[in-house]
Amino acid sequence: MPSFRITIEYDGSALVGWQRQTNGPSVQQYIEEAIFAFCGEEVRIQGAGRTDAGVHALGQVASFALASDRRPEVVKNALNFHLKPAPVAILDCREVEADFSARFSATRRHYLYRIINRQAPLTLELGRAWHVKRELDAEAMNNAASVLVGVHDFTTFRAAACQAKSPLKTLDRLEVTRSGVLIEVRTSAQSFLHNQVRAMVGSLSLVGTGQWTADDLRAALEAKDRSRAGPNAPPYGLYLTQVDYS
Amino acid sequence: MPSFRITIEYDGSALVGWQRQTNGPSVQQYIEEAIFAFCGEEVRIQGAGRTDAGVHALGQVASFALASDRRPEVVKNALNFHLKPAPVAILDCREVEADFSARFSATRRHYLYRIINRQAPLTLELGRAWHVKRELDAEAMNNAASVLVGVHDFTTFRAAACQAKSPLKTLDRLEVTRSGVLIEVRTSAQSFLHNQVRAMVGSLSLVGTGQWTADDLRAALEAKDRSRAGPNAPPYGLYLTQVDYS
Repeated sequence: MPSFRITIEYDGSALVGWQRQTNGPSVQQYIEEAIFAFCGEEVRIQGAGRTDAGVHALGQVASFALASDRRPEVVKNALNFHLKPAPVAILDCREVEADFSARFSATRRHYLYRIINRQAPLTLELGRAWHVKRELDAEAMNNAASVLVGVHDFTTFRAAACQAKSPLKTLDRLEVTRSGVLIEVRTSAQSFLHNQVRAMVGSLSLVGTGQWTADDLRAALEAKDRSRAGPNAPPYGLYLTQVDYS
Repeated sequence: MPSFRITIEYDGSALVGWQRQTNGPSVQQYIEEAIFAFCGEEVRIQGAGRTDAGVHALGQVASFALASDRRPEVVKNALNFHLKPAPVAILDCREVEADFSARFSATRRHYLYRIINRQAPLTLELGRAWHVKRELDAEAMNNAASVLVGVHDFTTFRAAACQAKSPLKTLDRLEVTRSGVLIEVRTSAQSFLHNQVRAMVGSLSLVGTGQWTADDLRAALEAKDRSRAGPNAPPYGLYLTQVDYS
């Protein structure tokens, strides 16, 4: 009974998110249906990050087991064949040990948040970045970001629906860079709370416009109060870029 | 009677191209309608590059004159307001001399062609790059590209519908680079023949797969025969990135 680990790219624009839901197509549903179409097996796959509706992935990871032996290359090509025309692609497939879990074996998750900071409306980047017209000071955002790095109670940056047992998380990286009108926020942690990245980016944007100082961001964090966070940044600027395993 | 020069970005996916046509919306039509909605003037705008259906622009340039005085910043914001929700955005607007022509004053046009070279289907890059599954040797493509740089009769790489008086053009730049699965072809010239970039990229792709050598490319060029070119690369990988003026 071989186990597989797949690396997945998707355009989340028309998806209800990673997880199966009744209100529309999810990445999980598309892939499980492709597995069934390929080999007739009904499996439940496990994803490393349960991305929300509209969120994209360049390197989501999932795992599953099949009853019969299959070569990873065959699995990859068959899934891509049966996934068409869904906006989901399998970039890589490899066989793993039976105890491998895309979710629980992950040692680090990496996200990218993209902001286009300009007056003009978006065209090619529509649905692929957050459009912020007000000028953002990316350097101030980057300086303030260091406030959130480390071990903290991230209750302020947690969705009401978050199911994590503890709000205590270790944030390994939160960096803001600018290249022309593109601002990129890169963040890494073993795991994130539900909506944490979007809540952090939303709050950092307040620093970028000058409405908040780094001290305001620190006070919001220390308040451990969801109502103290800035507005969530929209989902379509967010990309799950990579998941690491030891 | 002030004249204006605008810099335009567009997602060409749902457009019939730059020029007005009866079979669907064009960039020209969208912008002319926005100008009319803004100030009630019926003008004909002139574009630097008449891009085909599906071709994108990051820095197309157009020019037009208005009967009444308007500040460039006002024109830009009003056009962007009236263009919504068309996939067309005005990035910049400035006043120019009455004899300025976006088309005839241009000293150089710059295009980018994007190829994603991998097995897996495209998701986020769908309609924004050419998907080539067969492995391409970008270095071989780049070496062969130099064959086309310089002054040549580009009849081989010219569309049947091309209206240019002469097939003689000076190609200033044609470079191929790879970064992971992304192959970028960058090319510059004062002007190009109709379909020239797509025809050159299509032929270079044959060099990339090993079906052609650089000498085959040279022989095709020297034959001055359209039937000797490789297939045209598809329009959706092509971007008009910049137009220079002296």
